[in-house]
Amino acid sequence: MSSKIKIGIVGYGNLGKGTIKAIKQAPDMELIAVFTRREPESLNLNEPGVKVVHIANASEYKNEIDVMVLCGGSATDLPEQTPYFASMFNTIDSFDTHAKIPEFYQAVNEAATKYEKTSIISVGWDPGLFSFNRVMADAVLPSGENYTFWGKGLSQGHSDAIRRVNGVKNGVQYTIPSEEAIEKVRSGAKPELTTGEKHRRVCYVVAEEGADKAAIENEIKTMPNYFADYNTEVNFISDEELKRDHSKAPHGGFVIRSGNTGDNKQIYEFSLTLDSNPEFTASVLVAYARAAYRLNQEKQFGAKTVFDVAPSYISPRSAEELRKDYL
Amino acid sequence: MSSKIKIGIVGYGNLGKGTIKAIKQAPDMELIAVFTRREPESLNLNEPGVKVVHIANASEYKNEIDVMVLCGGSATDLPEQTPYFASMFNTIDSFDTHAKIPEFYQAVNEAATKYEKTSIISVGWDPGLFSFNRVMADAVLPSGENYTFWGKGLSQGHSDAIRRVNGVKNGVQYTIPSEEAIEKVRSGAKPELTTGEKHRRVCYVVAEEGADKAAIENEIKTMPNYFADYNTEVNFISDEELKRDHSKAPHGGFVIRSGNTGDNKQIYEFSLTLDSNPEFTASVLVAYARAAYRLNQEKQFGAKTVFDVAPSYISPRSAEELRKDYL
Repeated sequence: MSSKIKIGIVGYGNLGKGTIKAIKQAPDMELIAVFTRREPESLNLNEPGVKVVHIANASEYKNEIDVMVLCGGSATDLPEQTPYFASMFNTIDSFDTHAKIPEFYQAVNEAATKYEKTSIISVGWDPGLFSFNRVMADAVLPSGENYTFWGKGLSQGHSDAIRRVNGVKNGVQYTIPSEEAIEKVRSGAKPELTTGEKHRRVCYVVAEEGADKAAIENEIKTMPNYFADYNTEVNFISDEELKRDHSKAPHGGFVIRSGNTGDNKQIYEFSLTLDSNPEFTASVLVAYARAAYRLNQEKQFGAKTVFDVAPSYISPRSAEELRKDYL
Repeated sequence: MSSKIKIGIVGYGNLGKGTIKAIKQAPDMELIAVFTRREPESLNLNEPGVKVVHIANASEYKNEIDVMVLCGGSATDLPEQTPYFASMFNTIDSFDTHAKIPEFYQAVNEAATKYEKTSIISVGWDPGLFSFNRVMADAVLPSGENYTFWGKGLSQGHSDAIRRVNGVKNGVQYTIPSEEAIEKVRSGAKPELTTGEKHRRVCYVVAEEGADKAAIENEIKTMPNYFADYNTEVNFISDEELKRDHSKAPHGGFVIRSGNTGDNKQIYEFSLTLDSNPEFTASVLVAYARAAYRLNQEKQFGAKTVFDVAPSYISPRSAEELRKDYL
């Protein structure tokens, strides 16, 4: 009989696939099943021993799964799924619609508390590790300012906006943090910076044959909300170059706090440089799945966030090992 | 009647002085007394309302102080003081003799558990925030390597070693992390690096009049343990330059984890750039004093480390505010 933590995954998109990889790196976990809205037969996991189950039958796995990792989207999936699954399982999700977090928390907290489950919401890197560092930095340096920069990273929303421009066949957009703005913050100057001053946007566009490239470039650069307020660069490339050089999903960014103690400047900085955004996010979800399981064992029921979880809960190592080798 | 967390400080050196400044930045704390081995009358705090008390009379303050911040040294003070004070108060200390942490933990844990107190040990930035990040990084990226770089920072031990060299009137030493080594780690290459390959040492030396500078430089550069294994640079300066340019205690460093998920490289990085090492360390101690108080209120007795403390416990902000504004 296995004493590993038994994991289920809801959703088989990029995040779900990353979660399968992350579970393989966790010495103390095993994947039991992937739940999907599609016909289970249509999914070819190629993972011996892992079941594929229709999402409608999830309740049958109540006693076989310790933590359900919810890999759906924040717009429509998670607002329904997390409260529903939190009535049957401990859960982890990556809900990232910042403005709606308070009401999402409340709905999940009610379900999880009622059914004595533990749900850690809004896990990943932002929200997630970045949030964590914003709070730590604010607590250790009360006098100061937090700055968050994103990138270099592929932005799905901005890439979609490019692809809607007349004459554009395909394209991607990278958000790039301004080195100049980062250096200003690191200097302790505490500048006031708009999002546009903190980032620039670099586009790689495949134009349709015979399209007016100057018109495309102008339309992108003047597009309100998306590009007009930014320093935007447009590069035209071929289909082959797009496939070869721009098929990954890199991302990352910086949380910097510029603080003061007495007359002294103190800079706190956290950063991530990720070759794969979904795989890293999945790795964070899996580490916090361990915490959800342990908190539930301790009868700490209800909805939690990364702010409520101590590092020892997400580590597979013993307290003795951590004190001896990591302190 | 005040509902603030009441703090005592043991020791009035640089760390104790930094702690006084840090408490002033904490909206929910007040300093009650500073305890010292010196004659209390000899200390001029210039802090209205704060008592100066001989350390021998600390037990009289059992009911007046919520958390005692222990600002003594790791070599001889803390191994005695923390277990002693943990039998009367919740405590925070910055014990940093890595090899002795397991036995120190045990001694403190016994005292604190027996007397229902909460003691968070080895708090600061290394051990402390750096340890915290080593554990977080290891948990979210199980396949990878942790690297710790120190500096740019003034090293007291190496400065003392310089000052013992014949013909040296005064001097300081900075440990400087190798940019080349950091870039190699950031690239995901996972190099094997000795401490000497990760750091170089830069010395500013005031020579006695008529001293043989070439001999001084040679003696420093070939000194075993301290400098021989490092790329060491020796600069001769005047007394005035030493006072003007080298009287602060800057420090900092980097914790970098170079990890992999699937075929993708993922880099996790935490860094500090501190103009004042003792003031920053004190700020961390004070934030964790809040956590010690709260953990004790929840009856979580015994010795703890930063690994056992969730971010919400060190923040003065409410859970609602954190979820709304920081997640």
